Amino acid sequence: MEVTQEIIERIVRDVLAQGFGRKSCQAGLPPPSVSPSPRDPFQTSVGVSNRHVHLSRADMDSLFGPGSELHRKKAMKQPGQFAAEETVTIRGPKGELRKVRVLGPLRRDTQVEVSVADGYTLGIAPPLRMSGQLDGSPGIEIVGPHGSVQRGYGTIVALRHIHMLPETAAQLGLRNGEAVDVEIGGARGGVMGGVVVRVADASAYEMHVDVEEANAFGLKNDDLVRIRKR
Amino acid sequence: MEVTQEIIERIVRDVLAQGFGRKSCQAGLPPPSVSPSPRDPFQTSVGVSNRHVHLSRADMDSLFGPGSELHRKKAMKQPGQFAAEETVTIRGPKGELRKVRVLGPLRRDTQVEVSVADGYTLGIAPPLRMSGQLDGSPGIEIVGPHGSVQRGYGTIVALRHIHMLPETAAQLGLRNGEAVDVEIGGARGGVMGGVVVRVADASAYEMHVDVEEANAFGLKNDDLVRIRKR
Repeated sequence: MEVTQEIIERIVRDVLAQGFGRKSCQAGLPPPSVSPSPRDPFQTSVGVSNRHVHLSRADMDSLFGPGSELHRKKAMKQPGQFAAEETVTIRGPKGELRKVRVLGPLRRDTQVEVSVADGYTLGIAPPLRMSGQLDGSPGIEIVGPHGSVQRGYGTIVALRHIHMLPETAAQLGLRNGEAVDVEIGGARGGVMGGVVVRVADASAYEMHVDVEEANAFGLKNDDLVRIRKR
Repeated sequence: MEVTQEIIERIVRDVLAQGFGRKSCQAGLPPPSVSPSPRDPFQTSVGVSNRHVHLSRADMDSLFGPGSELHRKKAMKQPGQFAAEETVTIRGPKGELRKVRVLGPLRRDTQVEVSVADGYTLGIAPPLRMSGQLDGSPGIEIVGPHGSVQRGYGTIVALRHIHMLPETAAQLGLRNGEAVDVEIGGARGGVMGGVVVRVADASAYEMHVDVEEANAFGLKNDDLVRIRKR
């Protein structure tokens, strides 16, 4: 068989259609979810992050009292991480958000993670950053039951990312910090570009997105998505 | 030249890389915006829709008084459409949203368009629908300065769509109601699947997304994106 450009183009279209898993997607008619093989190692689940705060020991002391401790409300999928019973108010130049959950355990540096819409409510424009990359990020006031702190930096919109163990990364041929695309099914499906791979010991294989990303793609906790290497 | 599977796979990868326009995207480093040729007919601009209400004559009478008229605050890009000075409160079983903008002119049927997050605030789960497709959608209470109405249906999350003239659709080879993919650049870029083409006389070439979709993809009004046929 002679392979013409037409045949190649057809193959490309077929590959694209398969890759997107949305062949049957019609306007207004949500297709069935992407259902790759249960053993597909590129398939991972989604964890949706609402706005939250990580606190340093010093800020914990200021907000909840000297020597105070966080109380575990619910374990997160990432080993050792948990949502605490404790909440705070965060206050910007334009507005405030109440009952913002504190995540434990305590960290070296305080960090506030909000959505783009939260930034408008607060009156600040937090940059899109990986956790811990706080240079030049806007400050914020945090108010707790014992007192308040005015942070000079540390408010970010979290860059979407995928946690995985070193052995998973090795199996998938991915490196820590590498950007991948993620295919998402459903009526609001598509491809999320620039999803960062985070490789660490004691991590659970899971993609983290914020609430706006989840809603925009029709995603809920534990939904399945598929990594596509670039 | 013999065309092997390897060659075809390379072509597929090249096509994918070109199609996505994000070859240079690195984690944490926003790439330059997608910058297709200024004459690329598949390139269109973005209009971000915040929550809003379309009112029927009867509901306008109930909310703002018999024979009342909408007052034009700002023209929309779609010819004849405008944001009105008038706002209402919408109230669901769990909560309410104030200062929701009314869009004019009046329509045959009242329709309330909210985000997924707004649905949680209100305590309802509006379906993803094209404008006017209201069957089985949840009701809502609308409160105006003159009175209130309890709608039995009509609350939706708008399905993202692209307005265009018949001649634009003909040029692009697209039909009314057809679903396309849309490529978006930037650090939160990717591909929006299932974007519906709306062909009508007296329309402006523009893609409409809601606030959560805009924030999730890092889009603002008038940003440029590119249609990709399926």
